[in-house]
Amino acid sequence: MAEPAKGPLSGLRVIDLTRVLSGPFCTMILGDLGADVIKIEPPKGDPVRAQGTMTDGHSGYFAGFNRNKRSVVLDLYRDEGRAVLRRLLADADVLVENFRPGTLARLGLDEAALKDLNPRLIVASVNGYGSTGPYVDRPAFDFIAQAMSGFMGVNGQPDGPPMRAAPPVSDLIAGIYAALGVLAAVIGREKTGQGQAVEVAMVNGLLSLMAYLSSEYFATGQVPARTGNDHPLVYPYGLFRCADGQIAVANSHDQILTRFLETLDLGWIMSDPRYDTNPKRMAARDELRDLIDSRMEGRSREYWLDVLNAAGVPCGVVQDLAQVFADPQIAAQEMVIEAPWQDGPALKMLGFPIKLDGTPCAVHRPVPRLGGGTGEVLAEAGYDARTIAKLARDGVIGLG
Amino acid sequence: MAEPAKGPLSGLRVIDLTRVLSGPFCTMILGDLGADVIKIEPPKGDPVRAQGTMTDGHSGYFAGFNRNKRSVVLDLYRDEGRAVLRRLLADADVLVENFRPGTLARLGLDEAALKDLNPRLIVASVNGYGSTGPYVDRPAFDFIAQAMSGFMGVNGQPDGPPMRAAPPVSDLIAGIYAALGVLAAVIGREKTGQGQAVEVAMVNGLLSLMAYLSSEYFATGQVPARTGNDHPLVYPYGLFRCADGQIAVANSHDQILTRFLETLDLGWIMSDPRYDTNPKRMAARDELRDLIDSRMEGRSREYWLDVLNAAGVPCGVVQDLAQVFADPQIAAQEMVIEAPWQDGPALKMLGFPIKLDGTPCAVHRPVPRLGGGTGEVLAEAGYDARTIAKLARDGVIGLG
Repeated sequence: MAEPAKGPLSGLRVIDLTRVLSGPFCTMILGDLGADVIKIEPPKGDPVRAQGTMTDGHSGYFAGFNRNKRSVVLDLYRDEGRAVLRRLLADADVLVENFRPGTLARLGLDEAALKDLNPRLIVASVNGYGSTGPYVDRPAFDFIAQAMSGFMGVNGQPDGPPMRAAPPVSDLIAGIYAALGVLAAVIGREKTGQGQAVEVAMVNGLLSLMAYLSSEYFATGQVPARTGNDHPLVYPYGLFRCADGQIAVANSHDQILTRFLETLDLGWIMSDPRYDTNPKRMAARDELRDLIDSRMEGRSREYWLDVLNAAGVPCGVVQDLAQVFADPQIAAQEMVIEAPWQDGPALKMLGFPIKLDGTPCAVHRPVPRLGGGTGEVLAEAGYDARTIAKLARDGVIGLG
Repeated sequence: MAEPAKGPLSGLRVIDLTRVLSGPFCTMILGDLGADVIKIEPPKGDPVRAQGTMTDGHSGYFAGFNRNKRSVVLDLYRDEGRAVLRRLLADADVLVENFRPGTLARLGLDEAALKDLNPRLIVASVNGYGSTGPYVDRPAFDFIAQAMSGFMGVNGQPDGPPMRAAPPVSDLIAGIYAALGVLAAVIGREKTGQGQAVEVAMVNGLLSLMAYLSSEYFATGQVPARTGNDHPLVYPYGLFRCADGQIAVANSHDQILTRFLETLDLGWIMSDPRYDTNPKRMAARDELRDLIDSRMEGRSREYWLDVLNAAGVPCGVVQDLAQVFADPQIAAQEMVIEAPWQDGPALKMLGFPIKLDGTPCAVHRPVPRLGGGTGEVLAEAGYDARTIAKLARDGVIGLG
């Protein structure tokens, strides 16, 4: 496990000042791709180490965001701690942080100081609202970013409340974009020799996914209505009832709809004068739903998934996580992996969504014990054993 | 607009065989960052050109996914068309496609053929389920990927159906991941001199966002319940009623909750024996909600947003898109921009979520007219004017 990573980013050194969610996701992606990620933690550690259900004393939540990193414990409230950080940054390619805007400057690491220290350093920041504008000092949180970005407002039943997504999507999307911005800056640096600042705000990242909902708003001035699981413009579409539960069917255009109805022996619907246009079908939703449900109820979900997929009709089951993780496709795609803790148990976690055939993502390094990389990383940075021991005795660093 | 892009990816040439959503989002991100994106379209064009509300005959939906590209019309059903494509690929850095697995091979561009043509070429594929496994031939669609990935299953009210997100999140997240994988492969190529295949499946991308929901499942074997807009483990948290509507408040831990309640002059709750632990507060949700609502109803949303944010309590409004696009923070972050069509009107669209201070994302090129870049791109590839004219006469290319 300690051998150098072979991913496409091997040789890229990332100093990671992030904690909790958005930033750690960003740096884990970089680590999965082979970067050497050094996670700087305060003496008490990233708070997520103590969160979620523990397995043999180890947090699976922490593990799922921190594989492929080394942990260095450093007290940044002390001058000597900040001096160690500066020495690490002098040799690094990337710094990633997810403090509130202004915190880095209070650590003595404003833009000018960082440029002085290492003009090639790429400085990536993930935050809630961005570092300019009236909300710059507001605290951020995923639920709030979902609300402010317009994302919640378009989700949910027409007669129900706006609905958040349960996963912390704004944190995670910001983390992915930040990793992307970092790599763009690495490529740009080949030409300029200079690093630059990269910033992604959670609200902006989530807003960027509003796709045709935003273009329709710009074109019409109409705020999109919530439509639950139904398509706003097309019917039949949505959830239908089989013998043993529902399946989701996406008849996104007439050609697919025709195949769907023909597979159900309901092909006549498309030429029946009551239903032969989409507006008529939208108006006759309840009748059509009854017709379709009564046909589908006679067979199992598995039956319909087989014949409909074979007919080229996009369809699937609304899977819960137990079903997802038992799904042979998820297994074939290796979307569940195990990664060991440093000196601890191997835990199951999500796999790599980016598949590379030459230098694939891998578990290059275990989930780090708090401070488990401090001695090694400081030695690599040129600190001798005596100095390391003294810094540890003085509580500036933690050796784990 | 025709001057070379100045973004960090300037000089990177991307041949874009994608259409509709996931792939075009990937290549637009690369174009926003300065790559030279050549969108290969069939003679009838990307179907999205005809979708959504038209402004002066131009689709805002198409514009929002295709700025910063040049359009080349090429009939890939003809040998001569595929020959042009091969010539473009010989000099390119990246090919991006979002066909169903196997389609590229049917165009004569299987892995071996592409490697022969250009060993430095990075070949990125975005698809529904991945190119291995039992579902490889299934048609993909965002709604289905939301269902199959477990994402829908965790969203929605406890007593309601599983709830999709209205934006096509699985397409878009796959597109972002694909862009990230491409850039990692570009960086890896510096060391190896070789391109490689990059693949992102919509289901895998969305599954990768399941975060602590998945780690809790792995640790406990319990499928997470739907909790609507409420936090599964903490109360008070969620939507509360002000004089002029609701606000969202994320009291994610006791320290923030204390500040929230003190700001409402309800600080006594934290030491009242009925409410002094989180389990007691979870059990007394209805009472607490009434207490909080009755306090907050006396003042406007604006009032509470000001005082709560100042107190460090994450809170915000559930904004609809009209409110989002009127929000001064969104304006300060330049999240609405205008991009011109080639020979057409400028349209409003979403801005750039990745902020770079040295070589920022920009509208380097207009939204392309169908085939509006064919002549220019073929000339750059060494085709002389007579050959271009003949290919156009024969219907192999379209000059727009």
